[in-house]
Amino acid sequence: MSSVKDAPKSAHITWSHSSVSREQRLKLTGHGAATVWFTGLSGSGKSTLAVRLEQVLVERRVQAYVLDGDNIRHGLNRNLGFSPADRTENIRRIGEVAKLFNDAGVIVLTAFISPYRADRDAVRALMPDGEFIEVLVECPIEECERRDVKGLYKKARAGQIPEFTGISAPYEAPERPELVLDTQRDDVEACVARVLDELERRGILP
Amino acid sequence: MSSVKDAPKSAHITWSHSSVSREQRLKLTGHGAATVWFTGLSGSGKSTLAVRLEQVLVERRVQAYVLDGDNIRHGLNRNLGFSPADRTENIRRIGEVAKLFNDAGVIVLTAFISPYRADRDAVRALMPDGEFIEVLVECPIEECERRDVKGLYKKARAGQIPEFTGISAPYEAPERPELVLDTQRDDVEACVARVLDELERRGILP
Repeated sequence: MSSVKDAPKSAHITWSHSSVSREQRLKLTGHGAATVWFTGLSGSGKSTLAVRLEQVLVERRVQAYVLDGDNIRHGLNRNLGFSPADRTENIRRIGEVAKLFNDAGVIVLTAFISPYRADRDAVRALMPDGEFIEVLVECPIEECERRDVKGLYKKARAGQIPEFTGISAPYEAPERPELVLDTQRDDVEACVARVLDELERRGILP
Repeated sequence: MSSVKDAPKSAHITWSHSSVSREQRLKLTGHGAATVWFTGLSGSGKSTLAVRLEQVLVERRVQAYVLDGDNIRHGLNRNLGFSPADRTENIRRIGEVAKLFNDAGVIVLTAFISPYRADRDAVRALMPDGEFIEVLVECPIEECERRDVKGLYKKARAGQIPEFTGISAPYEAPERPELVLDTQRDDVEACVARVLDELERRGILP
């Protein structure tokens, strides 16, 4: 059993911490593992896509699990706020948890704004090559604000949320995401189909 | 999809954050989920038991995963030390991660000294009733020190490790663990068999 420190960082070498090999996990689940990292503005559709994708995958007998604000901010990261340092630590922990899930053979779907490029790139660097799939969920801020599912834009405009991504804090879009989805143009099922295609193309799904 | 804040804390109500129900997960994996929390002195055999149990479970086509120092201390908890506050935060995060794995349908096996009763009880309080299985791995400290697999007791006796559980820091044994294993008396396979029996008795394994 190799320790994390010995983990190879080079391409095409799969790393497993577990005493159970990657091959054994693959045989058990029937599929590979990866992290599908949805990033985009509040209201762009990240959670909706992640949750629908999870349902479709589980119906296909694929081990998949969503990490989002609901199960992370109220649990693991309940002791973090929204300062830049805390946002960075928030994403770092989520990346480490996603890596553990992947190691256990589970496909992870994350739905966090994750506005800083450096934070997302740090997560990418944790993962074996090809197992971090960054998905930019594109939607004009005007449309996100129109949807305003959680009423957050209204609060942000009223100055009740000090650092709100897209209003009073920056969103740094990925430069080379594995996938770009346009949730203003395409519906949920079309977007989910594109992620499934990408997972198949990469051999993560059979 | 209910939020964590709405999670029922009362007995016999299973909580699922995921959009995928407990029943769907059960159908997918063919087994229930739980956290088997091994606790005991350094060298008592926690990791050996967890790793062997993981192998046996995966051979039985059970989704199981070990969380231990190797994959936690070098990853998620790399920014924590060994002060009492950091030890508490270490165990808190592990508990939250174990809960996420359980929610995803994976049986978690943890191997941490976890010397403080309050920290373990806080993890228990996170979990649905009956899904936290505390296993005291008993072994006289003299035998642990004789084994001294990692050479830590030698260093602790030489004063090179300031707060070492059992030497210069306390170990608070569980008062009502679900299981007590004696690794001086029983071999690995016998101990693993007892955990398997317990998981079957509780209906977590078929």
